[in-house]
Amino acid sequence: MLRFECDYTEGCIPEILEAISRENHTQLQGYSEDTVTNRARARVKALCGREDVDVHFLVGGTQANTTVIAAALRHHQGVIAAAQGHIACHETGAIEAAGHKVIALPSQTGRLTAAQIEAVCAAHWSDPSFEHQTQPAMVYLSHPAENGTIYSLSELEAIRAVCDKWHLYLFLDGARLGYALASPKNDVSLQDLARLTDVFYLGGTKVGALFGEAVVIANPEIARDFRYHIKQRGGMLAKGWLLGLQFDVLLEDGRYFQISQQAVDRAMEIRAALEALGIPFWSDSWTNQLFPILPNEALTALEREYVFNHTEKMDDTHTAVRICTSWATTEAQTQALIADLRRVLG
Amino acid sequence: MLRFECDYTEGCIPEILEAISRENHTQLQGYSEDTVTNRARARVKALCGREDVDVHFLVGGTQANTTVIAAALRHHQGVIAAAQGHIACHETGAIEAAGHKVIALPSQTGRLTAAQIEAVCAAHWSDPSFEHQTQPAMVYLSHPAENGTIYSLSELEAIRAVCDKWHLYLFLDGARLGYALASPKNDVSLQDLARLTDVFYLGGTKVGALFGEAVVIANPEIARDFRYHIKQRGGMLAKGWLLGLQFDVLLEDGRYFQISQQAVDRAMEIRAALEALGIPFWSDSWTNQLFPILPNEALTALEREYVFNHTEKMDDTHTAVRICTSWATTEAQTQALIADLRRVLG
Amino acid sequence: MLRFECDYTEGCIPEILEAISRENHTQLQGYSEDTVTNRARARVKALCGREDVDVHFLVGGTQANTTVIAAALRHHQGVIAAAQGHIACHETGAIEAAGHKVIALPSQTGRLTAAQIEAVCAAHWSDPSFEHQTQPAMVYLSHPAENGTIYSLSELEAIRAVCDKWHLYLFLDGARLGYALASPKNDVSLQDLARLTDVFYLGGTKVGALFGEAVVIANPEIARDFRYHIKQRGGMLAKGWLLGLQFDVLLEDGRYFQISQQAVDRAMEIRAALEALGIPFWSDSWTNQLFPILPNEALTALEREYVFNHTEKMDDTHTAVRICTSWATTEAQTQALIADLRRVLG
Amino acid sequence: MLRFECDYTEGCIPEILEAISRENHTQLQGYSEDTVTNRARARVKALCGREDVDVHFLVGGTQANTTVIAAALRHHQGVIAAAQGHIACHETGAIEAAGHKVIALPSQTGRLTAAQIEAVCAAHWSDPSFEHQTQPAMVYLSHPAENGTIYSLSELEAIRAVCDKWHLYLFLDGARLGYALASPKNDVSLQDLARLTDVFYLGGTKVGALFGEAVVIANPEIARDFRYHIKQRGGMLAKGWLLGLQFDVLLEDGRYFQISQQAVDRAMEIRAALEALGIPFWSDSWTNQLFPILPNEALTALEREYVFNHTEKMDDTHTAVRICTSWATTEAQTQALIADLRRVLG
Repeated sequence: MLRFECDYTEGCIPEILEAISRENHTQLQGYSEDTVTNRARARVKALCGREDVDVHFLVGGTQANTTVIAAALRHHQGVIAAAQGHIACHETGAIEAAGHKVIALPSQTGRLTAAQIEAVCAAHWSDPSFEHQTQPAMVYLSHPAENGTIYSLSELEAIRAVCDKWHLYLFLDGARLGYALASPKNDVSLQDLARLTDVFYLGGTKVGALFGEAVVIANPEIARDFRYHIKQRGGMLAKGWLLGLQFDVLLEDGRYFQISQQAVDRAMEIRAALEALGIPFWSDSWTNQLFPILPNEALTALEREYVFNHTEKMDDTHTAVRICTSWATTEAQTQALIADLRRVLG
Repeated sequence: MLRFECDYTEGCIPEILEAISRENHTQLQGYSEDTVTNRARARVKALCGREDVDVHFLVGGTQANTTVIAAALRHHQGVIAAAQGHIACHETGAIEAAGHKVIALPSQTGRLTAAQIEAVCAAHWSDPSFEHQTQPAMVYLSHPAENGTIYSLSELEAIRAVCDKWHLYLFLDGARLGYALASPKNDVSLQDLARLTDVFYLGGTKVGALFGEAVVIANPEIARDFRYHIKQRGGMLAKGWLLGLQFDVLLEDGRYFQISQQAVDRAMEIRAALEALGIPFWSDSWTNQLFPILPNEALTALEREYVFNHTEKMDDTHTAVRICTSWATTEAQTQALIADLRRVLG
Repeated sequence: MLRFECDYTEGCIPEILEAISRENHTQLQGYSEDTVTNRARARVKALCGREDVDVHFLVGGTQANTTVIAAALRHHQGVIAAAQGHIACHETGAIEAAGHKVIALPSQTGRLTAAQIEAVCAAHWSDPSFEHQTQPAMVYLSHPAENGTIYSLSELEAIRAVCDKWHLYLFLDGARLGYALASPKNDVSLQDLARLTDVFYLGGTKVGALFGEAVVIANPEIARDFRYHIKQRGGMLAKGWLLGLQFDVLLEDGRYFQISQQAVDRAMEIRAALEALGIPFWSDSWTNQLFPILPNEALTALEREYVFNHTEKMDDTHTAVRICTSWATTEAQTQALIADLRRVLG
Repeated sequence: MLRFECDYTEGCIPEILEAISRENHTQLQGYSEDTVTNRARARVKALCGREDVDVHFLVGGTQANTTVIAAALRHHQGVIAAAQGHIACHETGAIEAAGHKVIALPSQTGRLTAAQIEAVCAAHWSDPSFEHQTQPAMVYLSHPAENGTIYSLSELEAIRAVCDKWHLYLFLDGARLGYALASPKNDVSLQDLARLTDVFYLGGTKVGALFGEAVVIANPEIARDFRYHIKQRGGMLAKGWLLGLQFDVLLEDGRYFQISQQAVDRAMEIRAALEALGIPFWSDSWTNQLFPILPNEALTALEREYVFNHTEKMDDTHTAVRICTSWATTEAQTQALIADLRRVLG
């Protein structure tokens, strides 16, 4: 079986394993206060074009989301997210367990718009009994969104303006950020994110690392005491250097961007093949996740050799599936899949 | 100004004040362990037709909702509610602050259906990554719902069946329960509620008491250690007898039901007058809350003398308002309002 | 049986019941936004000598403590309290349920000292792994403390200085504040409290009201959005005027201070009688709570007619009990108790 | 500098890195549902001598502690721990952030006794206002304790008996369990732990793994829905096989026990050298952590070449320090340290 159902079926790029082996017997200070991690922090700052951000490395996405949101919000405040947002539906209520409501907004596109956020805030603050409702205090975006689509620079700027108007923090979940940056449709840079958000993260788990997310905090209100929150939420690794080292390797010589580009290029090859076959898509994704709507018979045939993720039953005879490439997807795997797609769907 | 915007603008029925004055200098045991409260408990049990339920008296609705839900759920579990449900949008995220997600379902009618609950549970338990989502473990109904409509006996029985199938607790918020029981459309008795729900409450704050809700717990899993939860959530009154005594008076000689009936009768008079004037309604309410859709000009004219609650702008020229009667609404007030409605809208 | 075990066995001063009766049929705005409550707020501000404080009325002590602490602290912060403090041991973990650690310090006197607080903060901030510990961010004092003793002005000033040094909020639980102010040993005024604390409350439940605590917030960081927290913690009464009105009556013409004085005077009579009998005390209390250490045989004899609270077994033959007077204790009751104490212990 | 301050300064045993490299390009199912993890589960069960336990792999200690405790307790319940216990003082209030009080008991030995637990429970349940207090529902032990000492089998059996009597879960934090099992004073087996506790874990982070703790749940009440709690608390790794694989390697051919034994043997050599020099110890530890009390001058001299952890100032001229060996400590490092100890202290 060849797995295309997600982008975390393999381990990591070989350079990371080499680096771990190299450092394995070095005695390093615990809890991310070591020299390797500091070097990785410096790389992140340089790429963001800002020396004044705080950089922390956490193990995974749910942990990063919970820690950032809990560090930022007071008890009566909530976070606005798309209804499909990871924090709204795939983290077992982690944000609520930390005491905060996720204010989930329906979205056709899987992304939030500045207008939606404006409407929620305007409604809240004009309601005479606003104190009987959760106060909106943060906006959570996934970029790429769960359906593979990405925000444009102008969309992000509009959202930032609304956040400024209503005193909302802007938090961008970049678990797959590399694949957004590598998209042919992308016009957003890391520096833009460091300028427009209060906090965002650069995902490693799905982009070449064994695990790890690099959290970049531009707003000092959120940065203050952040390490307490990491510890409290179970994210302070004794051997924190394992996190820093992985980002040190990923961000050296542009590796992170190269492997992301390669994964997106392969997805685009698959996308072109599907388009040529007249297959429609569930979302307009130009990143490493594609969501073709396949006839059930063809899907059954393909699933003898491939693993996909079933996203949604479209009707009695069609199903939207997720096909993911990753940094680990080879050209041979890509061509094999394309050939089989043509054979079955042609 | 005459206030019709809600059912808690006045204090309480005079018999309650008399009883407080009578007991005011009696030395009574604290924390609801006194004889007066026990008498009230016995009255509730008798009306429910069950000796095996636990009865606790709490100060208000948000407190009752939070305490019951926190007592019932484990950390990974959530409660299903209509999107308009009080816990979903008018309690400042109290349920989330207690750690639990409100799984809010859209509803045209303001009420949940058995089919909706079935769909949520079926989807949860058939999802291969169900553990990445909040586990649905309780259903919350408001009866009457926030829009004044009520559940029929068959609707409640269908919901109970779904709860049994998926191991969900059924919790009914009866903050205005008296007005539901008095509705001309009602076919549900207190005994039915004690039989069909795991826990419900009989509201006092909006039905003749100064404050207070009588929580009836039929399920021993929720009843166990419930007083710890009352204390932890700030609901254990030193002078708990004040709560018990109010229900003792309300439930004596059927007063609770008489004053509810009177309030609903007056609402029905207003409803008939509005219908005769051809005024449409925002919801099909046959309880003490009416939601007529009024022309804005007429509304402005009426608001020189009356206070209503604005529920929703329907279009540029019409607004849905809430008109509430209560146990305290007099026949004179009712006739004055009807006369003015006829004058302005006729 | 005559109950001396606590100060909340009776209802309220008659003037409160009269005022409720008088307002009972007035239509008042809900949720403490009415004119009566505003009048009570003005009285509290005048007594505190500050117009710039925020005043809110809550139902009870646990609710007030949880709401204030949750409004003030971020998730990684905790509150320092004496090990005997109400929040540390008599609120079923309400503070922890809100997510915050109570940093409980042992105390011989039942009160905290500036030196203890200084030591905790110095230890925290000098520890290289301080981020692995709860950050101390608030000090909670009960005044009188649970053992009836009170803080002197110089003790409070020293604590304030430590709080300033280490950026701690100072919160004073005044559930029995009237009895502290009336103590022959007292040298602290309401104005002092409004000047020295960030937030404190003036208790009503144990001092003449049916229920209610008046929370005075001097620090705008805590005051901001406080009503959200009241609602979230279940403390927003629909008929909030019931709270305001009780304080309006209590604070009119100095009633609150007079009834407190009367209760303390009676306690001092009992204290003098016990001292004359050579009875030792468990704590050096000069307020309405006395803690004599009685021989068990005498206690058994007395408990045929009186109810006391057992505080601690001192040895096989002696028990410390709590004897409370309150605003409701009559001179006749006091003299009866004194006569019986003399008869049994003489 | 040679670091002896803790047992997590190096990476992992080489066999783990080899195994990661070997599996690095295998496509494996996510979220610990892969075949490698299942093999590790089978190894743990075999070592525990029980097929009916549940085994889960988590990243670190704070995460394991929070997840287990949150999975086990209802909101009104707390966990009894020694005041020095990790959850009581070194996890930034993680347990409280999950809503639960840590009932911290003072301990001279750093360990809890059955008698202490008995006393707490007897006091709780005999108090007439027990519902005003956190209900004790779990006992947390660290084994070895933070001071390096270990529980004997008879101590654990006595604690189990008290837990049975008062319906408490028994939870044993084995972050350093290997070093306890290897102690010359040990008489407790893994099978004993699986029999006597409701849940315990076998630590990897400090015993040869890069990171990871193997949680063994014998009580089905805690096991039920445990994966929801892992996800909610941020512990569900996308590449969960990294955890399983490390334990698969550690537990193969008894490696875990051999490396633990080696570390303890080296600690015993250091211990013997210190004893021969007449150095007293802060705790009676026979595991990999030693706490000699050193003269400050000698300490200063040693710290030119060694890193130790300062545990406590004993007086103006003496300090207790922690000296840790680990699976990574070499015989050469051990002998170097011993030689320098003799030189400086001799």
